[in-house]
Amino acid sequence: MTSTTTRLAALRQAMQQHRLDAYLIPSSDPHQSEYVAPRWDMRAWLSGFTGSAGTLIVTPDRAGLWTDSRYFLQAETQLAGTGIDLQKLNVPHAPEHQDWLAQQLPTGARLGLDGRVVALAQARALAQRLATKGVELVTNYDLPGDIHPSRPPVPATPAFDFATSFAGESRAQKLARIRQWLTDHQADAVLLIALDDIAWTLNVRAADVAYNPVCVSYLLVGQDHATWYVGAERVDATLLAALKNDGVTATDYAAIAPTLMALPDATRLCIDPNLLSCHFHQLLTGKALVEIESPVAAMKAIKNDTEIAHWRQAMRKDGVALLRLFRWLSATLAQRSVTEVEVAEQLAHYRSQLPDYFGESFPAIVGYEANGAIVHYHAEPDGCATLAPRGILLLDSGGQYRDGTTDITRTVALGTTTPEQRRHFTLVLKGMIALSVARFPEGTGGAQLDTLARQYLWQDGLNYGHGTGHGVGFFLNVHEGPQGFAPSAVTSRGRTAFRAGMVTSNEPGFYRSGQYGIRTENLMLCVEDQRTDFGTFYRFDTLTLFPIDRQLMDFSLLTADEIAWINAYHAEVHAGISPLLADADELDWLREQCEDM
Amino acid sequence: MTSTTTRLAALRQAMQQHRLDAYLIPSSDPHQSEYVAPRWDMRAWLSGFTGSAGTLIVTPDRAGLWTDSRYFLQAETQLAGTGIDLQKLNVPHAPEHQDWLAQQLPTGARLGLDGRVVALAQARALAQRLATKGVELVTNYDLPGDIHPSRPPVPATPAFDFATSFAGESRAQKLARIRQWLTDHQADAVLLIALDDIAWTLNVRAADVAYNPVCVSYLLVGQDHATWYVGAERVDATLLAALKNDGVTATDYAAIAPTLMALPDATRLCIDPNLLSCHFHQLLTGKALVEIESPVAAMKAIKNDTEIAHWRQAMRKDGVALLRLFRWLSATLAQRSVTEVEVAEQLAHYRSQLPDYFGESFPAIVGYEANGAIVHYHAEPDGCATLAPRGILLLDSGGQYRDGTTDITRTVALGTTTPEQRRHFTLVLKGMIALSVARFPEGTGGAQLDTLARQYLWQDGLNYGHGTGHGVGFFLNVHEGPQGFAPSAVTSRGRTAFRAGMVTSNEPGFYRSGQYGIRTENLMLCVEDQRTDFGTFYRFDTLTLFPIDRQLMDFSLLTADEIAWINAYHAEVHAGISPLLADADELDWLREQCEDM
Repeated sequence: MTSTTTRLAALRQAMQQHRLDAYLIPSSDPHQSEYVAPRWDMRAWLSGFTGSAGTLIVTPDRAGLWTDSRYFLQAETQLAGTGIDLQKLNVPHAPEHQDWLAQQLPTGARLGLDGRVVALAQARALAQRLATKGVELVTNYDLPGDIHPSRPPVPATPAFDFATSFAGESRAQKLARIRQWLTDHQADAVLLIALDDIAWTLNVRAADVAYNPVCVSYLLVGQDHATWYVGAERVDATLLAALKNDGVTATDYAAIAPTLMALPDATRLCIDPNLLSCHFHQLLTGKALVEIESPVAAMKAIKNDTEIAHWRQAMRKDGVALLRLFRWLSATLAQRSVTEVEVAEQLAHYRSQLPDYFGESFPAIVGYEANGAIVHYHAEPDGCATLAPRGILLLDSGGQYRDGTTDITRTVALGTTTPEQRRHFTLVLKGMIALSVARFPEGTGGAQLDTLARQYLWQDGLNYGHGTGHGVGFFLNVHEGPQGFAPSAVTSRGRTAFRAGMVTSNEPGFYRSGQYGIRTENLMLCVEDQRTDFGTFYRFDTLTLFPIDRQLMDFSLLTADEIAWINAYHAEVHAGISPLLADADELDWLREQCEDM
Repeated sequence: MTSTTTRLAALRQAMQQHRLDAYLIPSSDPHQSEYVAPRWDMRAWLSGFTGSAGTLIVTPDRAGLWTDSRYFLQAETQLAGTGIDLQKLNVPHAPEHQDWLAQQLPTGARLGLDGRVVALAQARALAQRLATKGVELVTNYDLPGDIHPSRPPVPATPAFDFATSFAGESRAQKLARIRQWLTDHQADAVLLIALDDIAWTLNVRAADVAYNPVCVSYLLVGQDHATWYVGAERVDATLLAALKNDGVTATDYAAIAPTLMALPDATRLCIDPNLLSCHFHQLLTGKALVEIESPVAAMKAIKNDTEIAHWRQAMRKDGVALLRLFRWLSATLAQRSVTEVEVAEQLAHYRSQLPDYFGESFPAIVGYEANGAIVHYHAEPDGCATLAPRGILLLDSGGQYRDGTTDITRTVALGTTTPEQRRHFTLVLKGMIALSVARFPEGTGGAQLDTLARQYLWQDGLNYGHGTGHGVGFFLNVHEGPQGFAPSAVTSRGRTAFRAGMVTSNEPGFYRSGQYGIRTENLMLCVEDQRTDFGTFYRFDTLTLFPIDRQLMDFSLLTADEIAWINAYHAEVHAGISPLLADADELDWLREQCEDM
C-alpha cells in the first residue's frame, strides 16, 4: 500500500466515526494563500498530488481530485495507483467538483470540511449549490489534522522590517490610507487576512511559506488601534519598537480568535468573504459585519515610483543571472549532458550571487522537450529529463530580490528546430508583442486584452489552457490580484480595469502534448499613454530584460512592425544589462543575442 | 410653458398627493420591449426626449434624464429649456441613476414607479442599492398614466401566421422543445413575456409596435396546454384554427393577471426576473416560482438553415435597394440639393419595391456631416440637414422582409475627402475586418472579441461610445439577445459565448463631434471553423452585401491581407447582387464599385 492509500483509509475511518458521507480537502490555509505551509497542505499530504491548485473529495467508495489543465499530466502521474480519479477542470479554478457532489451525494448527506481553511464565500457557494439535495455542511472537523501523526507547526520564521527606501511608502502612511478608507465606508475596523496584504501594510517580510516572503499573521486595523497577531517572540526588538512608534501592537497569532469573539456587537468590522474563514465567521455571529473586498488588494496593486525604480534594477540583475545560466548551459552541453534539476539549481545559484537576493519567487519550471508541454512542470531529481544539444527547452523562473520580484519565461533552441516549432514559437511571440504594444482606454479589463495575445494561435485552431498573465507583487507574491489577462470574464480577474502602476505578466504559450512546450513571458508596467477627447488611454512598458531566441522565430510570419519591436526590445535589453557586465565574453554574447534582425 | 414643463408640474402635483419624494420613469413596457408602443412611452411623453434609451427621475425640485453617449447630442437639444438635467451615462445602460438617488433622497424617502413596466430584477437592484437609506419603493401608482389626458390604448393590429417555409421550424416543434426544457428543469410551466420570444415560438407576427413585427401578448406554456393572451378578436379564423390544431388556445390579453393569481400554489412556474414585472410578481406571491432566463432567448438566437438561406436572399435584395438609393442620390445631387429626410424616404421606397418587404427594421439614420456624429440621429423634416456634393454621409438603415431582417451602415464621400477623414474611416474599417476574419474557440464571448474592432482606433487614442455589435432576429427584432460585441464584461451580452447559427452585427465607428461620423456595418453569421486538438473553433461568415466606399480608404494604412479581404468581399457582393439586376447602368455601377483595389 502506498502512503496515500493508507492515509485515505484512515480518513474514511474518521469520516465513518463522524457520520460524514463525503469530505472535501481544498488547497488552502486560513489565509487563502497560494503556497500553503506544510501545516495546512493536507491535500498534498493525503493525495500525493503536489501541484499548487487542486480539490480532493473523498467518499466511502470514491475519491476525486479536481485540477486545471496546467496540471493534467503531473496529476495523472502522481495519482496513478492511488485510487483517486483525476477530474479535469474545463475552466481553471471553477467549482466543477460541486456538480459532482450534487450528483453523487444522497439527499440529506453530511459533507465535511475544515471550516478554518475554507473561506466564507466558498462555503456559501457550496451550500447553495447543494441546497436542493438538503446536504448539510459540517465545518467543525479537521479530519486530516486529526489523522496526521506529526502535523507540522504554524510557521514562525523571524519577521523583518522592509525599509521604506524600498517600499516607497511608510507603514504610517499606509495605515492612514486604510483608516481613510474606513472613514469613507463608515466602518470601525478591518481585519486583514491575506498574508501579502499584511506584509504590504506593515512593510514587514518573513519566510514562513515557500517563495512568498510573507509572515503568517492577522492584522486588525481600527481608527485608533492596529494589532498584529503574529507571535511577538519572532519580531526583534528594533522592529517591535518601530511598530509601536507607528501605533502597531504585536501579539500572539492565536489571540485573534478570542479578540474577534470579544468585539462589541456594534463594531462595524470589514471582512472580505473571499478571505475570512467560515470558522471565524461563526465566531463573529451577531457582530455588525461589513462584507467588502480587502482595501489593500487595490492599494498594493498600484506600484509607487520608488518600487518601480527598484524593480527596473532587479530586472537588470535578473537578466544577468539568465545570461550566465544560458552561457553555462551551452558550454556544458558541449561537454556533457545536463539534467533539468541541474539547470534549476544552477539558475538559482546565479541569482543568489546578485545583490539583495532573497530566494526563488516560485518553483522554477525547467521543461525539456515533452516536459515543456506540462505547463507547471517541476523537475524532480528522480526521473527528470536529461538535456542534449537538440530540441527545445522551456524555462520559467523568477527571483525574490529586496528590490523586486521577477518572473520570466524563455523558450530556447538547444539544437536545430523544425518549421512547425518555429511557426508555433512565432505565433506565440506575435501574440506577446500584440499585448506589449496595446493601447486602450480607461476601464478596459484583462478579458478584453487577452484576445490580442491569442488571436494568431486561434487563426490556426490552436490555443493554450491558462491565462495570459497575472499581477505581480513587489518583493511579495509573484501571483497577485486583482488584475490579469484571462480568456474569460467570469472571474473578477478578467474584469478588473487596468490602472497606471499595475505590474502584470504577459505570457502566452503553446503546448504540443508529448513533444514540446513554448512560452515567452515578460512583466509589464501599465502606464498612462495619452489623454484625448475620448478619455485617458493606457499602454504597457515592458520591465523584463532578456533576449528572445531568434533561432526559434519564423521571420516570414513577422510583420515589419513586429520586427521593429523585437529590435527595439533587444536594444533596451542590451542597454539595460550590459552596464552590469565586466566579462568581455559575456558582453559579446549579449551583443550577439541583441543584434538587429 | 412647454408641454414638458406642464406635464412635469402635473406629475409633481400627483407625487405630492401620494407623498412620493421621487418618481422614476423608465423606457419600458410590461414586456421590456426596446420599442414601446405609445401607450407606454411615458418617458418620451413627459420629457420630450425621444431616444430609445433613457431613464427620467423627477423630484419636487429637480429632474434628470440618464442616457448613453449615442444620445448625448440629441438629448441636449430635446431637453433644452425643460428644466430636466441631462445626466450622461459613463457606461451605456448602467444604473448610474441609482447613485444619484442614493445621494439625493432623504433617509426613509418614498420612491414611486409603475410596477407594471419595471422588471423584478430591476426593482430588486434598485431597492438593494437604496436599502441603507431606508428608501421605500412604492410600485402601485402609474402617475404618468393618471395625468395623461388621452392615453393611447394597448395596440391590437391583426396577428398573422408566419409560414414554416420561412421560419424553418413549426410551432409544434418549438413548443415541443420548450416542453423538453420544462422537463429538464423539473418545471410545470413557463410564462413567456418578451414579445419576440412569443412571436418566434408561435410563428406569428403583427405590427403592434414600430419596427419590430411583434404582437403585444403573453404566452403561458405548460406540458399539456399553451395559452396565448392576445385578444382573440385580432386573430383570424384560419390562424386560430391552426393554433388550436397545435394545442394553442387564444384568449384576452388582460386575462393573464387573473390566470396568474389562480395558478395552484404548487405549480412550478418559470419566470425570467429580467422580464416579469414587479406587479405580476406581487400577483404571484406564494407560488412556487422558478427564476430562470427565458428558454426562448437561446433557442431563437441559433438560426436554422431555412432561416439562413432566406436571409441570404434578403441581403441580396437589400443590396439592390442601397444601390438604387446611392445611384439616385448621386444623380439628384448633380441637379439639386437633397435633404436627409428625403434620403430616408427614398431608401424606404426602394426597399418597399422588393418582394416580401414588410417595413423598416429601425428608424433610418441619415447623418450628413456633423449630424453623422450623433450616433442615433433621426432626421426630422423641420431642421434636418441638406446634402450637397461635398463632405461625408453616414447611412444606417434596415428592412424587415419576410425572408430576413437587415441592418447595414455605409459611410460615403459625397465629394472630396480629407486625409483625416480617410484615416479615421480606414482605422474603423481595419477593426471591422479584424472582427470579420476572427477565429476563436468555443466559449469565447463578445467582450473578448470587441477589442479586435477597436484596437486600431485605440492606438491613436480614439474610441467610440457604443457596443460593436448586437444579435439580430429573423424577421423579428433587429436588436436581439443574448450575444453581442461589447467593450465590457459587466453585462451578460459581453459574456455570452458565440455559437454556430448566431447572427450579429459588426459595426465599429468613429465620431468627430460637430464634424462627421463614420460607421461601417455588416451582419455576420457565426459558423464552425474547425475542430482541432484544442477544441472547436468558430468564425464569422459575412451576410450583408454592399460595397464599401473606396474613396474613403487610406490605402497606405491597409495591409495586403486587408486589401485581399476587401477585394474578396467586393467579389462576393458583385456575385450576390448582380443576378438581381437587369439595368445595364446599374450593373456598370456595381461592377465599378466592386473592382479590385
